Amino acid sequence: MDIKAYLARKKDIIDKTLEKLVPPAKTFPPVIHEAMRYSLFAGGKRVRPVLAIAAAEAAGAATADLLPVAGALELIHTYSLIHDDLPAMDDDDLRRGRPTCHKTYGEAVAILAGDGLLTMAFEVLSDPRRLKCIQARTLVSMIREIAVASGVFGMVGGQVVDIQSENREIDFPTLEYIHTHKTGALIRASVRVGALYAKAGKRQFAALTRYGEMAGLAFQIVDDILDVTGKQEELGKDIGSDLEKGKKTFPSFLGLEESRRRAEEVLDALKGFGRKADPLRELARFIINRVN
Amino acid sequence: MDIKAYLARKKDIIDKTLEKLVPPAKTFPPVIHEAMRYSLFAGGKRVRPVLAIAAAEAAGAATADLLPVAGALELIHTYSLIHDDLPAMDDDDLRRGRPTCHKTYGEAVAILAGDGLLTMAFEVLSDPRRLKCIQARTLVSMIREIAVASGVFGMVGGQVVDIQSENREIDFPTLEYIHTHKTGALIRASVRVGALYAKAGKRQFAALTRYGEMAGLAFQIVDDILDVTGKQEELGKDIGSDLEKGKKTFPSFLGLEESRRRAEEVLDALKGFGRKADPLRELARFIINRVN
Repeated sequence: MDIKAYLARKKDIIDKTLEKLVPPAKTFPPVIHEAMRYSLFAGGKRVRPVLAIAAAEAAGAATADLLPVAGALELIHTYSLIHDDLPAMDDDDLRRGRPTCHKTYGEAVAILAGDGLLTMAFEVLSDPRRLKCIQARTLVSMIREIAVASGVFGMVGGQVVDIQSENREIDFPTLEYIHTHKTGALIRASVRVGALYAKAGKRQFAALTRYGEMAGLAFQIVDDILDVTGKQEELGKDIGSDLEKGKKTFPSFLGLEESRRRAEEVLDALKGFGRKADPLRELARFIINRVN
Repeated sequence: MDIKAYLARKKDIIDKTLEKLVPPAKTFPPVIHEAMRYSLFAGGKRVRPVLAIAAAEAAGAATADLLPVAGALELIHTYSLIHDDLPAMDDDDLRRGRPTCHKTYGEAVAILAGDGLLTMAFEVLSDPRRLKCIQARTLVSMIREIAVASGVFGMVGGQVVDIQSENREIDFPTLEYIHTHKTGALIRASVRVGALYAKAGKRQFAALTRYGEMAGLAFQIVDDILDVTGKQEELGKDIGSDLEKGKKTFPSFLGLEESRRRAEEVLDALKGFGRKADPLRELARFIINRVN
């Protein structure tokens, strides 16, 4: 299969979904809607929504009705980027080659744009007009899945440990904690909501969960590798910035070779699946082989 | 009825509920759990949870199973206070007579503690172990109610307009927008989730909604009045600080007399209710007559 064409097709569908999920930029008060849109439509690859859709496909479901749920995952991802970039956090001026949200709209609006996007995810996930084909029980399970992955036992917890680790020597378990929580948890949840939607059986659900965990890890490992080897213009952010901040990475603990081998383990999780899991397989290869 | 005893009893039950909803302070990573608890157990009056419970009682329901939902409302209220106090927002050093969250734990942790509390509300609202007695459909309606009230069409929207209005002349509709959104929306939602839980009929639901709207307004009007007339030690925050910042208030538009009369209108909404609505009535009187 042509993964680039698949990704382009899905990205287009997801962008159209997001366009309908968030209010027009002129909605009162406009500044918050402009700021949310500024970060939401900044060229993101929509990895989490695509993973949710591809996981549902792997488990044999048609996915049109899953789109608002997939969009909600991107709202949460975008909120986390806005808050991570804040001066009190990672203090980043650039994101995907453009000024970060707080650089463009100021800190107060950026904090509120993040709060607004996070909350909007749950507005979407509980909207009966958008989700009439999903049973209420399934919706509650999806909300639980996404909330736990985003909160103190997931993304927020990972970010806390990450900022506390800046300019400090950390051990390998701490590095793993940061990555499995800061990025891994929401990626795992993305795959799992796809599986929940498709009503995957127990074994499929466990295998997809494993895939989600390994995909999240692979994503981060490759990020670390690119930070060492990538080119600034390809990433659109400062190269070597992790090293500069004294951050430990997978390559610094395991070397480039072993790091790459670990990233490739993600494919093992899909052994029991047939052709329907090809998009998930190609997505994994895409994550492993990406250059930005 | 003795509203002070009623409030003390409910506050006690809600505090015990909150104690069970949030992880122990030693949970890893401890700083975030300490920070969330620091703000959550800072002596809040638990107005929103009590309103939810009293509304359910007014509609004839026993309320033990509503407690986690009531607690979730307080998690969201607490998140909003933490983010409102941040240097980029209202830049407040004191809250209820104690240093604000960011003064004690730093800005990064305060932002994340707010994010964590907001997200935890939805973790709680979708937790089947905590809420087994509430139907999934009702839960989804409650989540929707609370999310919309907290987001860009509610609390976040109100805060955006509030910070944009600082040191500016605003008109009365803008003042009303700020208050009905920044504080009013979540108070209205609190009453409505109580009514949803109790499966209130259409007319009762509409009347309770009206009560929630008027109670939110009354709460804010009295806040404004106290800012003019109150004593610093009673409020635990800087007196006249709204005036200092050039903020327009209800008394500055309507005068003290007319402001007070509007606050008292909240009681009209309960005319169709019997004795079971006495706690809501007394709560309204308590809001109107409070001195801090």
